[in-house]
Amino acid sequence: MSHQSITKGLALKTDSKIVFIVLDGVGGHPLTPTGKTELETARTPNLDKLASRSILGLSNPIAPGITPGSGPGHLGLFGYDPFKSNIGRGVLAALGIGFSLRTSDIAARINFCTTNSKGIITDRRAGRIPTSLCAQLTKELDKIKIKGVEIFVRPVRDHRASLIIRGENFAGDISDSDPQKVGLKPKPLTGKDIASKRTIKIVNQFISKAQQILADKKPANMVLLRGFAKYQKFPSMKEIYKLNPSCIAVYPMYKGVARLVGMEILEGAETLDDEITVLKKNFNNHDFFFLHVKKTDSAGEDGNFKQKVKVIEDFDKKLPRILNLKPDVVVITGDHSTPSVLKSHSWHPVPLLIYSKFCRPDAAKEFGESDCLRGGLGIIHATDIMTLAMANSLKLEKFGA
Amino acid sequence: MSHQSITKGLALKTDSKIVFIVLDGVGGHPLTPTGKTELETARTPNLDKLASRSILGLSNPIAPGITPGSGPGHLGLFGYDPFKSNIGRGVLAALGIGFSLRTSDIAARINFCTTNSKGIITDRRAGRIPTSLCAQLTKELDKIKIKGVEIFVRPVRDHRASLIIRGENFAGDISDSDPQKVGLKPKPLTGKDIASKRTIKIVNQFISKAQQILADKKPANMVLLRGFAKYQKFPSMKEIYKLNPSCIAVYPMYKGVARLVGMEILEGAETLDDEITVLKKNFNNHDFFFLHVKKTDSAGEDGNFKQKVKVIEDFDKKLPRILNLKPDVVVITGDHSTPSVLKSHSWHPVPLLIYSKFCRPDAAKEFGESDCLRGGLGIIHATDIMTLAMANSLKLEKFGA
Repeated sequence: MSHQSITKGLALKTDSKIVFIVLDGVGGHPLTPTGKTELETARTPNLDKLASRSILGLSNPIAPGITPGSGPGHLGLFGYDPFKSNIGRGVLAALGIGFSLRTSDIAARINFCTTNSKGIITDRRAGRIPTSLCAQLTKELDKIKIKGVEIFVRPVRDHRASLIIRGENFAGDISDSDPQKVGLKPKPLTGKDIASKRTIKIVNQFISKAQQILADKKPANMVLLRGFAKYQKFPSMKEIYKLNPSCIAVYPMYKGVARLVGMEILEGAETLDDEITVLKKNFNNHDFFFLHVKKTDSAGEDGNFKQKVKVIEDFDKKLPRILNLKPDVVVITGDHSTPSVLKSHSWHPVPLLIYSKFCRPDAAKEFGESDCLRGGLGIIHATDIMTLAMANSLKLEKFGA
Repeated sequence: MSHQSITKGLALKTDSKIVFIVLDGVGGHPLTPTGKTELETARTPNLDKLASRSILGLSNPIAPGITPGSGPGHLGLFGYDPFKSNIGRGVLAALGIGFSLRTSDIAARINFCTTNSKGIITDRRAGRIPTSLCAQLTKELDKIKIKGVEIFVRPVRDHRASLIIRGENFAGDISDSDPQKVGLKPKPLTGKDIASKRTIKIVNQFISKAQQILADKKPANMVLLRGFAKYQKFPSMKEIYKLNPSCIAVYPMYKGVARLVGMEILEGAETLDDEITVLKKNFNNHDFFFLHVKKTDSAGEDGNFKQKVKVIEDFDKKLPRILNLKPDVVVITGDHSTPSVLKSHSWHPVPLLIYSKFCRPDAAKEFGESDCLRGGLGIIHATDIMTLAMANSLKLEKFGA
């Protein structure tokens, strides 16, 4: 019996409010063996003040030693077993731009790229073409007709777009055509099962027609495909937690994950300041707010320790605007660690803070990896966080008599 | 493979003795963010002295964030997976008064109540009638005959009694008739499956006959039913641990859980002093003693921080009487937390102390939530406690060659 199915049986509808803040990739690593992490280096008086009234800990998003992608990282935070609910990036991208996927649709991510006369990739991002050109090109590709299926092509941002194939008996267990390097040709697609092989035949027709349409376009004269996935409906957070959940995020991908679990997307935010304004404006309309902060991860991925410190300090300055709303429960954590020193997501456990009037505060006083290690939550699995947030907002009945 | 099934294969019969003390609901919460819990506030020189020679930790009875009822809370402590072994309160009540349930019996809790001429409940507890009157009334109700089944009605305490229905193909997935409020009529019973619906037909006959019998009785002129459950035999602690286990408790419900897992109930205790006297008297006859202290929980449920502190201090004063018996292993913990500030069971991890000559003592020196957090056991699942108690009493062989 999974934790989520237990929580489902115990969930109560109440007026209390949960603000669940994800500082993407917030967990870090010192630059030297005796140094401090990004989060520990940052001057964060507001986070530390909150930490002293909160219970701290660390969480493993998937399992010790496993580095999560953004999809499973977030799904775990929302209480969904990341193994059972591992969903391809193509589906998240399509949901992220608000495309209404139907059960069994196949979705993939498109990168517009540049190839030379021999078909060799010279720029995997076609010089990061502007979103306006992307929109123009996807309009052309959206006209492609293939017998027996419906094809949808939608712009995402810059050189990125979404491909959706609607038909019967397809599967998404298909390799990427993107070789992840320049100087190579796009890779032929491979699929393990019969349904995936059937799907590949359709996709290959799409690629060849797209190539014809794009042939004389510059710099985007070809498409690369990756993240194939089949859409399956998830049980919603409303069904499981009796919440009326909402999402405030800037980037489409996180809106996609949120939509997957049935959150309402509160649009209109382009910066963290905007996000908090949106939170404030909608605070009476929902009881759960997922607020996503992207730039911690971007700085980590760029290997920019100082910039990651700065992003955290910026967030700290804005935290009081959130706390002034007096949410009953505040969760602050990440979907994974992104240490600047690794320039990538990592397996390191993620700092976690849960504030409520009833959180049984611990001796940990600062929101940083070392203090979190001494925190009252210990090292938990990320899928336990939602249960704890529900408990702390008094939204769970007791189990058994 | 469950932990219990591993332990079962390794258990050894030896002379060493385990005293397993449950301070019901002992885990607490500070009154202010920087304050101390009830257990930390209590002056407990004897517990602290023992703690300095013990290994400490915290346990999650069910899962992080999940608040346990008393049944699953105790079953977890005895090593039974609380999900698989979640058992209705009706069965625990019947076992608690020593009724010999047979497999597939349906049991429910009875509350004698008072209704007015319109059948509306005016007192859910019939003025807490004395146990002697309860015994008299149950004797009348026990005479009820219903075709095709055997009916048993037994007194518990005050206004509480047990109903047992013995027949074939019944089920206990039946809602309560107790509306939990005065000013309402008893609720009609509902059941999800066919067997439960069949059972409801029998119960409704019982209710109507009981109503006739009680009609002119004052103040107990009606019955409310709750906690329907079907009895299923559990593997006993004797089978699993090769122990000869015993239970010393004042309240029937805890004797019920103990009987469910095959403990012998050592009767005769009405106070904690009595309980220790019973322990002393029987110390040579058993190798495992579950000693239950109720009043920590009662004080917490009443929201009485000071009283809970006092109950803990009282226990501390009496602890040397137990230690003087020189048990090989002493476990002191709770079945859940009951913070006075919440006036109810809660999800907070429960303080845990394990003493033995071989427990590898840690740096924690006081039996309180903060020190337990720094203890050598870490934060464990409650079902691990029995295995640790068995190990510390050298009652487990090694696993594998």
